[in-house]
This record gives sequence, C-alpha cells and structure tokens, in this order.
Amino acid sequence: MSAPRIGVIGAGQLARMMQPCAIDLGINLRVLCNSPEESAAQVIPDKVVASHSDIEAVLDFAKDCDIITFDHEHVPSEVLQALVAAGHNLQPNPSALQFAQDKLMMRAALTEAGIACPKWAHISSEQQLEDFALQVGWPLVLKSAKGGYDGKGVWVVDTQEQAAAVIADIHAHGQEVLAEERVPFVREIAAQVARSPHGQCVAYPIVQSTQTDGICHEVIAPCPDLTEQRTAKAQEMALKIAAMLDVTGMLAVEIFDTGTQFLVNELAMRPHNSGHWTMNGAVTSQFENHLRAVLDWPLGSPAMVAPHAIMVNLLGKDLDNLHSAFRHVMARDPGIKVHLYGKTVKPGRKIGHVNALGDNLEDLKQRAWHAADYLTGVIDE
Amino acid sequence: MSAPRIGVIGAGQLARMMQPCAIDLGINLRVLCNSPEESAAQVIPDKVVASHSDIEAVLDFAKDCDIITFDHEHVPSEVLQALVAAGHNLQPNPSALQFAQDKLMMRAALTEAGIACPKWAHISSEQQLEDFALQVGWPLVLKSAKGGYDGKGVWVVDTQEQAAAVIADIHAHGQEVLAEERVPFVREIAAQVARSPHGQCVAYPIVQSTQTDGICHEVIAPCPDLTEQRTAKAQEMALKIAAMLDVTGMLAVEIFDTGTQFLVNELAMRPHNSGHWTMNGAVTSQFENHLRAVLDWPLGSPAMVAPHAIMVNLLGKDLDNLHSAFRHVMARDPGIKVHLYGKTVKPGRKIGHVNALGDNLEDLKQRAWHAADYLTGVIDE
Repeated sequence: MSAPRIGVIGAGQLARMMQPCAIDLGINLRVLCNSPEESAAQVIPDKVVASHSDIEAVLDFAKDCDIITFDHEHVPSEVLQALVAAGHNLQPNPSALQFAQDKLMMRAALTEAGIACPKWAHISSEQQLEDFALQVGWPLVLKSAKGGYDGKGVWVVDTQEQAAAVIADIHAHGQEVLAEERVPFVREIAAQVARSPHGQCVAYPIVQSTQTDGICHEVIAPCPDLTEQRTAKAQEMALKIAAMLDVTGMLAVEIFDTGTQFLVNELAMRPHNSGHWTMNGAVTSQFENHLRAVLDWPLGSPAMVAPHAIMVNLLGKDLDNLHSAFRHVMARDPGIKVHLYGKTVKPGRKIGHVNALGDNLEDLKQRAWHAADYLTGVIDE
Repeated sequence: MSAPRIGVIGAGQLARMMQPCAIDLGINLRVLCNSPEESAAQVIPDKVVASHSDIEAVLDFAKDCDIITFDHEHVPSEVLQALVAAGHNLQPNPSALQFAQDKLMMRAALTEAGIACPKWAHISSEQQLEDFALQVGWPLVLKSAKGGYDGKGVWVVDTQEQAAAVIADIHAHGQEVLAEERVPFVREIAAQVARSPHGQCVAYPIVQSTQTDGICHEVIAPCPDLTEQRTAKAQEMALKIAAMLDVTGMLAVEIFDTGTQFLVNELAMRPHNSGHWTMNGAVTSQFENHLRAVLDWPLGSPAMVAPHAIMVNLLGKDLDNLHSAFRHVMARDPGIKVHLYGKTVKPGRKIGHVNALGDNLEDLKQRAWHAADYLTGVIDE
C-alpha cells in the first residue's frame, strides 16, 4: 500500500490548510484550482487548473485520485453524478452533500427528523409569503435555496414590498426561495464532528461564534457559560445529523442559541471557519481529521491542548502591508499564532486568522484582538 | 512588502518540515533538490533540480530568493562564497556555517572560548596519535573533520593499528583527522536555540537524547532529572556558542552529560532531530523559529504546551507497508502524532517520527514506543 492521493476540488484557504496535515500524514493532495495563484494552489505541487463546472476537466483531474473531497459546496450536481458514474470515491457522497447545497432539502430533512430549526417555508408566491409573515412576523429572512449569487444569498426584509422584490430577484436567478423566521438568538454557537465512512465519529468541543456583517469574526472554545448538559445536547445534535445524512469528513452545524433552545442555522460538510482554532488548540486539527475521515482512517482525538482557545479572523481593511504589521505583532506577543492564506488584501475578505491558547480567556481575547486589529490596520499601536 | 521567498538548499525531511510552517506564515519556499521525488520536493511547488555542488545551478536557483538557508551542511565552501559574492543573503552565513562543516575549526573555536569539549587533537601523523592515546587511553574516537563519506564519519578504535588504518583512509579521502577521547558519559542531552541576525535568541527546554547505533532514536522534553541550575547552564552554553559563532536560524548543541560536566559533542546550524518534538510540543516549532530567525523576524515562544513530550524516530526495518500499520496505530491511540517523510523504507533509514504529549512520562514512553515499534514492524500487536 503506497501513500494515497486525495483530490480536493477547490483551492481556497480550506484546501490550503489541509496541506500541512497531508505533509505530516505522508499523503498526497491534488488540487483543482481556478489559477495557480489561488490560496491552496500556491502550496500544493500537484494542481490542475480548470473550472469545477467542467465535467470533462474534473473527470480528468480525478484520475489516479483514491478519494475526492471538497473545499466548497459549489460543485454542480451533474459534475458530482459524472464522478460517481465513473467510479470515483467521493467523500462526502453527493447524496449527503446535497443537504449542504440545497437549504430547502436541508430544512425538510431536519424537520422530518425532529431536529429544531427556525420556522421556515418554501415560498413560491407572494401570497405564501404573506401567510408566512402572519405566522412569524416582520422582519423575516429570505434565502436562495442553493446558495448565493453576486455575493448575496441571505436577505433580511422588513416589509411585504421588500420581500416581493427579493423573491422576484431570486426567481430571476433560477433559484427557489426559502423563508425563515428571524430568530431572537442570544448568541451563535457551532458544533463540529468528524465522521468516517465506516461510521466512527468524534465531536469537538462546542464553540461560541461571533459574526460581523454576517461574516464569522471570533470563535471561542470551549463555548463560555454552557452547561455540561447543554454541551452534550449540541454535540448529540451534530452527531445525529452526521449519521442521519451519512456525512463523511468534517460536519459543522451552526446553531442559534436562544438561551433555552438550539435551532440549526446552517450546515457545512467540510472544514469550517468555526474550527480554525483546532490548528493550534486541539490534539487533532479539523483539517487532519477531515483527511483521516475521508480516507476512512481512524480519527484523532478532538481534545483541547489548553483550557481555552480563541480564533479571530483577519478581515481585509485598508492595510495591505501585512508582513510589516506581522513583525510588530510577533514582537509584541511571542505566543500568538498567525495563519495567512496567501491572498491579496481586499476589504472584508478573509485573509487569515490568529489563534491564541491559554488559561485566562480575558487575556487571550485581548491578545488575539490586538493582533487581528493591528494586522488589518484598525489600530497602529 | 510582499511575501518573502526563502531558498532552501537540500530537500530532505528538514526542508519538508519547514513547509507547513511556511504555509502558516504565508511565506514561499523554493527548494534545491536532487530529484522531484525527494522528501521536501514532494510537498513544495517551487523546486529546482540540481546538485548543491554546481555553482552555476545554485546561483540560478538563488535568483529572486530573499534569503538562502539549508537543510544540511554539505554545500561546498566555493559554492557558499559564490553566493555571497553574488550578493545573496545566506542564513547562517558561511563564516558561521564553517564551524558546523569543519569539526577541527569547531573544536578550536570552542576550546579557545573556554567551552568544555572532550579532549581532542588534530592528528597528522601516527606519532601524534600515539601521544594522544597515551593522554586519553584506548578506545578513542576518530572523525573526518569535514563530515563523512561512504556513510561513515566517526570511528571508535581500540588499538594503534586500527587507528592507523582509519587515519590512512581519512587522508586518502583528502580529509583531516580529528581525534577525541571517548567520553564516559551517563547520557546525551541537547540544547537548541534560535538566533536571528539582529541578535534575538530563544532557548528551548533541554532534552535527553538516546541513540541506537549512533542514530538519534528517542528524545524526551524536558530532560528528566536535570536541576534548574544545570538546565540553565546547558541553555547558557548554547546561547554563548550561538552568539560567539554568529549563528542564525536554529542551533543544536549535542552534549555529553558525564553527571558532573557538560562536554560539547556536535553542533548543527539548522533544525535538528532533537527538536522534532517541538512540532506538537512547543508553542513555536523549531521549523517555524528557523524560518522566523533567518528572515530576521521576531522569534516565537519556545514554551512547552504540555508538561512532557517524547519523540521516537521511525527507523526503517522490514515492514514497508507503512500505511496499513499506520491505521492500527491511529486506532489504538487517537492522541499519537505520526509524522512521515514520504520516503521509501530502507533498513536504518529515518522515515518519520512519532510525538506524544501529556502529564505522565511513563505513559507517553509506552505509547510512543508502541507506535514506533508497530510502524516499523518490530512488533505486530
């Protein structure tokens, strides 16, 4: 048995962060990228430049790969089906992946299984929306079922008139409309599990996730002020979803915590931003466990290596002189761990993250936020 | 300021293990390799296939690199001088590196600085050896000053006759002869420091290193049964050597511990086997600090993330079915960290290592040795 080759479709930062683990495990990655300058393509020698929508190119890419996995959910179902038909081993399988690609299917499956979600409805007409709004009140949330276009995918609307315009726009893009109540949550948390084809699972500690303008910004592990009982409940929720949908690799379940209830917000069947802290804070990072899981290898311990961990995303702002700021941050805090994605800086773009570990969460917060704010130019001292 | 490019001469496992850190730091490595299948060349996209003795090829390789550093000490001095003459930034500089390349120069410099070494002599004639043997007794140790040839570089000799044959052989290979007393050590330890061009240093915990047939096999951090005072003494010894020889990047000082005295055995000016435990066991691995140091960036914390760490090398034996054994090891111990080098298995060859971290050293020893023995086929259950 020689070293296996895993084909990764998509060359963003998630594929990039798989490469250090692949190096340690002695396995080979091949990445499908849009250009050799993409984040993961910079650091993986074996790369194929092609669109993930090009069936012939993807089939060619997949030759000689033992397993195919994903950096994102955007591979069209006809491409996935062609891969399966050609005998390739996809992890996760399209029959699982569809629930991460289509939010209507996800809502229907979870609801049928008795897993709590925000109130939701499939909206085909203005009348249906009016009925739904009577039930949940304004404002409410509209989503395009199969993900975003033009950088948008979720709209909060205040009136029937606004909603009608959004619905028309979604339909004009050939998509279905999912309406959801706007949940009065007290915070957002995330549950991550790894699951392998033969059914082994590990559950990571539950984390608290804080968003800025809809983008994940800060993650704290373990989730503060969460009882053991509620922690177990959130972990069981993710384990149940993983088994029920036959997820393989990493599953992230984003959850609204209303204080009394957990309502599932989104699913991602791949490594996820809410698990970047594991790169320094867990015995086995989410990237290593994703690779082990898709290979059907035994999973690694998800235990933490310190009492507390924090991750803060680097969201591009005005400062593009990252490496100069980097030196200041390194000099100020020899314990901070900075991870960069090899991306040019654009406002709002995820260009990296910082991790910090230790005994005192307040101290970690100050250190991580100082580093992130300095690296992005929010502060200059 | 864009991401710097570091040229690494040599593509063994040390260069390979720099790549995960380079990925995290967002910097680019270019590697000079003998073939694209070499350990580091497998995982670094930017590679040049050429001999490190080919001046023109190395100069070409070095173009567009901001810094040149090394995976090994075997680059001939004429190549180093040509790089310096062409204006390249070598870290460590040839004026430092020569002390790692030439054991006679190293012994002379350390002795002049008052740093304890085994008794030693530069041997040019049989008479000189006879005089030295009268002083230190038999057996004694002979070394070729500028490293090995045909896989040999150190000989333990019992008689004048044996010694004469070795000396003639070393001279026949155009090298000088260093003779050393055979030190009655109780154990071997190692001190590692990182040092940057502007003089910042960090000292890692002192480790205990155990050899099998002259090859490092087990490393324990921190060194058991070493007083605070003796720990500080060993760290100070390494810091003094680093500053005195103007070392940049990682310096490893291999030391004989006689129970009362520390005698310097060898120096290495690069990441070293005695620091592989830092990949999982320290806040900043030796590979990350090597890159930060040669870039003259602020150094990272060398603190341990657990009370104890152990590393056991995987030395090739009969079993070449590594990945099958790997699964058993992973299933048995979800906390063990296995690092493979992408090498084919040959008897005695370093093909990887395992790390384990935790509170109980005896438990860690059992776990790490079981994993290493299973992976190399010494045991099968």
